[in-house]
Amino acid sequence: MILIELPFDRSIGDRAKLTLQKTVKLEAPYLIFNGDIDDESYSKTGRGIVDWCPDRVAGQMRLPGGTIDIGVPELSLAQAVEKGVRSFIIGITPIGGQLPVHWFPVVMEAIEAGIDIVSGLHSRLVDIPEFAVAAKRSGSRLIDIRVPPAGIPVGTGKKRSGKRVLMVGTDCAVGKKYSALALTRTLSGLGVKATFRATGQTGIMIAGTGIAVDAVVVDFISGAAEMLSPDNDNDHWDVIEGQGSLFNPGYAAVSLGLMHGSQADALVICHEATLTQILGWPDYSIPSLSECMEANLRMALLTNPDVRIAGLSINTSKLPVDERAQYLADLSREMELPCSDPMVDGSQVIAENIRDTF
Amino acid sequence: MILIELPFDRSIGDRAKLTLQKTVKLEAPYLIFNGDIDDESYSKTGRGIVDWCPDRVAGQMRLPGGTIDIGVPELSLAQAVEKGVRSFIIGITPIGGQLPVHWFPVVMEAIEAGIDIVSGLHSRLVDIPEFAVAAKRSGSRLIDIRVPPAGIPVGTGKKRSGKRVLMVGTDCAVGKKYSALALTRTLSGLGVKATFRATGQTGIMIAGTGIAVDAVVVDFISGAAEMLSPDNDNDHWDVIEGQGSLFNPGYAAVSLGLMHGSQADALVICHEATLTQILGWPDYSIPSLSECMEANLRMALLTNPDVRIAGLSINTSKLPVDERAQYLADLSREMELPCSDPMVDGSQVIAENIRDTF
Repeated sequence: MILIELPFDRSIGDRAKLTLQKTVKLEAPYLIFNGDIDDESYSKTGRGIVDWCPDRVAGQMRLPGGTIDIGVPELSLAQAVEKGVRSFIIGITPIGGQLPVHWFPVVMEAIEAGIDIVSGLHSRLVDIPEFAVAAKRSGSRLIDIRVPPAGIPVGTGKKRSGKRVLMVGTDCAVGKKYSALALTRTLSGLGVKATFRATGQTGIMIAGTGIAVDAVVVDFISGAAEMLSPDNDNDHWDVIEGQGSLFNPGYAAVSLGLMHGSQADALVICHEATLTQILGWPDYSIPSLSECMEANLRMALLTNPDVRIAGLSINTSKLPVDERAQYLADLSREMELPCSDPMVDGSQVIAENIRDTF
Repeated sequence: MILIELPFDRSIGDRAKLTLQKTVKLEAPYLIFNGDIDDESYSKTGRGIVDWCPDRVAGQMRLPGGTIDIGVPELSLAQAVEKGVRSFIIGITPIGGQLPVHWFPVVMEAIEAGIDIVSGLHSRLVDIPEFAVAAKRSGSRLIDIRVPPAGIPVGTGKKRSGKRVLMVGTDCAVGKKYSALALTRTLSGLGVKATFRATGQTGIMIAGTGIAVDAVVVDFISGAAEMLSPDNDNDHWDVIEGQGSLFNPGYAAVSLGLMHGSQADALVICHEATLTQILGWPDYSIPSLSECMEANLRMALLTNPDVRIAGLSINTSKLPVDERAQYLADLSREMELPCSDPMVDGSQVIAENIRDTF
């Protein structure tokens, strides 16, 4: 089962080939490392990988004291080597975003076994001299997902071939990654050529490639977004993971740069049904859905005058179970657009709308 | 004559003190170095400094073959030392943005004399090991203006005391820096407390402090803008140099992040009267002035719901001389806002509008 197409498959043109070399490319199979963590809430990265690309995962590993179990085979490092594991993925985001020192020895062992180390933490693997020296010796790559590739150009604004749908939202953390992954899967199931394009760390680990756009210098953010979804077949859709929100006072620039570089033909508005305040900015209210739609359309017009909204992807999990379907039906009638919860049916109506009317 | 107030003068509150320590602070007097350049068009940085803060400039220096003369005393390095020069400013931006190797010896001499070296070039002074070693020995600082300070936080969106006016524009390079400097000077002349806040390299050299916001990682751009214009007296205006344009497909994210962090009370719309295409993006048209006003107001509302437009600052130098005044008068009638050319009268009508109605 291929859930996520790697972007090398369908890219066309020299420009695409040139730019894609600059993005990171992770080697499967993965060993997901869960450390000695016993709190499930830190294991989202590892779980996301197992949920969305189980065929890239060989197994998991934990240290004494750890209780996280993401439902794949438990492997020692020796067993992982035997199974041909190519990447040791830090599946945990500890508080503070630092790699705990007592995890160093096992990471070092993996480096010495020639396995790539992949981390989305704020502290960088390459800044630990012992790792750098050992990796040079063994040929292991130290891959800091949050470090963008070198040489990202300024966005050109030039029209590219192929089609693009971008997730935008009323806030950060409203399900943009999940919506993009579900939509990619559903489009593929409908026979539509579609590639998930990752813009954040977990997304990159799932797709095996991508750029953490929020870590790019602001002058180059739309250029990074252009690299992420290069020229492609005319009937191919890039399904682009969104970041931030135009309504978030800290991160709106991330959203706008990603939007301008994406040149989206279609936008999917992502929202969590019960949200009222911007998470972490208590003075800021969540915009109404029509306000969100209007602002995003307006700004997206700059680089694609034909942009339209393909649907609303709503996380309804915090609504009472018996109200969810009615909420979506009412919203769909009010907005005159397909509305669905991606966790319920994988955004079926939005995928059909994209297939039939774009 | 004090043209530009240093931001330490009027800042209040611990937060302001804390954050301002993170911005660069250049020491006057300056020696402006023009290398062996003979093309006037590369000397804008040095000229800008002499135009806007002559009291910070002790003199200029050139190498054999150089012909640039920015109208200040010609000094040897020995004379500069004698005059107490504290900063050796690279006043030239050579093609490619690299420091030419044949300039290294004189830069090295300045370092050895304990003078700070200040560069806005893309190649970084600190990456040249000989400079780094010599600077450590002599106590000279190697100041790469384009490298943002460490530890910039994510924007908080929290309301700050004091007032802010931000330059925005129909494109990059339409006179936003000049407009901000002229407005600061005119406001000061009217007895309004005003500080120019620099967001680009020449602006920083003029003000002696600031952040090159386009070099900041996108997650932190609005945080950088918040640091740039901290809490202040209620009747004090920060006059913030703008960057980019919401209508530029490469740089709109810079403009939006700067706008959200600035929490502008007033916007000044900057424009070059004859411009029709986005410079460097020939497929993109310059927006109409009303479109530009509307889009900027709309986006600025997020972090300051009371934002209004204070006026239009138009570079009319490419219009026939006898049409300029009429153009501004017609525009002012049409837009019902003060319109002026900052090179003609220093944005007098805009400054008066700010003093009287904001």
